[in-house]
Amino acid sequence: MNQAAHQAIEKAAGRDNYSSSRAMRILFAEDATNRGAHPPEAVVRGTHETQIARVLKACSEHQVPVVPRGAGSGQTGGAIPVAGGVVLDLAGLDRIISLSRPDQVAVVQPGVVTGQLQKAAAEQGLFYPPDPSSADFCTIGGNVAENAGGLRAVKYGVTRDYVMGVRAITPTGEIFETGGANIKSVVGYDLSKLLVGSEGTLAVFTRLTLRLIPKPEAVATLSGYFKDLTGAARAVQELLSSGIVPTACEFMDRLGLKVVGEYGGVEVPDGAEALILVDIDGPPEVIRRQAGQAAEILSHAGGEPVKVADDAEQAAALWKARKVLSQSSYQLGPNKLNEDVAAPLGRLADLVRMVRGISKRHGLPIVVFGHAGDGNLHVNTMYDASDPEQSTRAHEARSDVFAAALSLGGTLSGEHGVGTTKLGPAGAEIDPVALMLMHRIKKAFDPAGILNPHKALPPL
Amino acid sequence: MNQAAHQAIEKAAGRDNYSSSRAMRILFAEDATNRGAHPPEAVVRGTHETQIARVLKACSEHQVPVVPRGAGSGQTGGAIPVAGGVVLDLAGLDRIISLSRPDQVAVVQPGVVTGQLQKAAAEQGLFYPPDPSSADFCTIGGNVAENAGGLRAVKYGVTRDYVMGVRAITPTGEIFETGGANIKSVVGYDLSKLLVGSEGTLAVFTRLTLRLIPKPEAVATLSGYFKDLTGAARAVQELLSSGIVPTACEFMDRLGLKVVGEYGGVEVPDGAEALILVDIDGPPEVIRRQAGQAAEILSHAGGEPVKVADDAEQAAALWKARKVLSQSSYQLGPNKLNEDVAAPLGRLADLVRMVRGISKRHGLPIVVFGHAGDGNLHVNTMYDASDPEQSTRAHEARSDVFAAALSLGGTLSGEHGVGTTKLGPAGAEIDPVALMLMHRIKKAFDPAGILNPHKALPPL
Repeated sequence: MNQAAHQAIEKAAGRDNYSSSRAMRILFAEDATNRGAHPPEAVVRGTHETQIARVLKACSEHQVPVVPRGAGSGQTGGAIPVAGGVVLDLAGLDRIISLSRPDQVAVVQPGVVTGQLQKAAAEQGLFYPPDPSSADFCTIGGNVAENAGGLRAVKYGVTRDYVMGVRAITPTGEIFETGGANIKSVVGYDLSKLLVGSEGTLAVFTRLTLRLIPKPEAVATLSGYFKDLTGAARAVQELLSSGIVPTACEFMDRLGLKVVGEYGGVEVPDGAEALILVDIDGPPEVIRRQAGQAAEILSHAGGEPVKVADDAEQAAALWKARKVLSQSSYQLGPNKLNEDVAAPLGRLADLVRMVRGISKRHGLPIVVFGHAGDGNLHVNTMYDASDPEQSTRAHEARSDVFAAALSLGGTLSGEHGVGTTKLGPAGAEIDPVALMLMHRIKKAFDPAGILNPHKALPPL
Repeated sequence: MNQAAHQAIEKAAGRDNYSSSRAMRILFAEDATNRGAHPPEAVVRGTHETQIARVLKACSEHQVPVVPRGAGSGQTGGAIPVAGGVVLDLAGLDRIISLSRPDQVAVVQPGVVTGQLQKAAAEQGLFYPPDPSSADFCTIGGNVAENAGGLRAVKYGVTRDYVMGVRAITPTGEIFETGGANIKSVVGYDLSKLLVGSEGTLAVFTRLTLRLIPKPEAVATLSGYFKDLTGAARAVQELLSSGIVPTACEFMDRLGLKVVGEYGGVEVPDGAEALILVDIDGPPEVIRRQAGQAAEILSHAGGEPVKVADDAEQAAALWKARKVLSQSSYQLGPNKLNEDVAAPLGRLADLVRMVRGISKRHGLPIVVFGHAGDGNLHVNTMYDASDPEQSTRAHEARSDVFAAALSLGGTLSGEHGVGTTKLGPAGAEIDPVALMLMHRIKKAFDPAGILNPHKALPPL
């Protein structure tokens, strides 16, 4: 980035919104991925649409990479400026522009924190279902860029299902809108759905039109421990085909249970191989009955004990195993390779078994847990990164986990995205002709290739 | 299409699968749109993937337009070969390749009739929710191309929500796959969701991976007549925010009620301005209670009489008004301009009122009915096409309906697509920069511009 580029971008951004100080560069060098820092050459604070358009235009003209950034809570390096250039900080665009109860629609800026939108919707008796575990600090813009999932995807789907319209800016600085506040619309190609999950590589969002739905009246929680994996998998299968649509249906394997038992203060029965945790929402009398029915399904499949929460406190106690897991698992190793593979619903038990084999083969603890109801599992390999030999084994294990998922017709990522960390392996998943088409789409939006380069799409 | 092109395409198709006979050309000159015939120069029967790839390659090389066709049941001219060339008949690719109960996934060829898939799913205790009114004869390939909706979209969404993966062929003859049997996947751009609704302009589908869900146990039906539109609109609003998620929530206006009363054998109360018809599905005891609750909401908003069906026969009687409407409305005029505009949920009553004004202004009967629960209304202008002056008025009324929808933040089409019939007006809806991006995407898939030309995207 030469002097002319610095000057042009500073002019476009406005002096107060531009910094190339060492402190700012270090501050924006990393995101939550925790695999090394890449300081940008400058940081621009996005303040409004025309300013951002000017900045993008200047960056395109000077061939300067731009990395849009929300809260920096991504897990696959999406906000890391690996090619230098500018980080475009959008966290300040944090206004809920409108929230209409009759239309069941919210229009928000990309920097709105997901949890804030959830709260604002709830105040109107409405509900924004996507609920990534980072909801308290991640932003909607990042959620849309990554097509974030979360616990409630079993019943309510993922972020893409709630994006009705997008206002955005192309990397060449052209402002455009696509979609709107209509639940159904089939006019033109659905660019909104294409932009969702494009990991900040196609356009910079300035406004998102999101669908809201009526808030469910109440939630029931139950859990069951299983002495064998097959029983747990059968419980999930039977629950999902029972007609009950659970809000969440979470799984945790024996190693996860071991650590939450030993270090997380959770009472885990001896010999537990798996835990299934279920939330069901709806009208109180319905969920009470359905929770009873779900408990029978879990018991019938071998769940012992199966517990149905009587109140919020008991529900929190059942969820405790899940909540303390991440922290407790660091007792197995100071570092973590956190992957979010998915597989078709019927292959989940196979996937868990294959991961157990991988753990044994590489001699490293691998904790498996996650969203059994939609086939999306978190596979966390714990290791010590300061030990080069362990690091090598951990990365080999990770590759094997990816290969296992693909061998079952699965995918490398159910909700975290490709970013930089899965760029290599993604080449094995994406069909080569489809990849060529994706690169052409990238070029259609970003002829100069400046927007979040080296992310999302493996090279051809 | 010169002799060399005919020969090359015939060779690619295989002689038995190629015809340029007058009879075949006439047979494939129209679809259900009913606005004039455009005979193709040849018809190719698609038999398998490599054959279709060869045909597309030959057509690309010889710059011959190709129009993929399923059942030809589209309403906007999507299957009409307006630029001549070849119609590619895919109706013979009608195999359900697999249907997995554990994975809750079906893999089908594009020529499978939607109703057949629904039936096959039901036999396994599963459910394919999209339900266009043409389900008994339309094909899945066409449904995916148009992102078909239908009655159940309120609760279950549209075709796009069920397309997990696509196997397809580019216009240059390259076979590719995108997505798969994973409920969640965020690896690469979501080409599957982009192909849905692309109206056969980007690729030819050869295999579709579709999500199935558990079959609901039962359905409850209720209806309410309203003496004023505001009450009907309020009933819909209150129902949708009550926590009950209806499967269907249909609306019919006074003119529709008049024709089904006079010609359809339906007993309509005097002075009825609107009918609201509701289906609720789920476990029997839940829907019984919810139907009672919904009936109270309808009554409270002024519904009189409100009826809850006690059995399937009574339910069919309530649905009769909707079922006989299309046929009965021809009593108002031998021809119909059938549009499917949509608006944000809170603007539906405004839209109906504006259409009434348009009807009055142009002196033509306009029947309004449709999917109130998702904002998608069918607006049918009845007229006599043999009278040029009436035709002019009908088309002016249609333009005014489009303008009314757009003025409310609505859309020209909720489920039928743009095709050829809305190509002009769509230019007023799609943002010009977005349209430019869509054209670039079209070029990325179809550099020679041979696949279903002059459809879906208005010219730049």
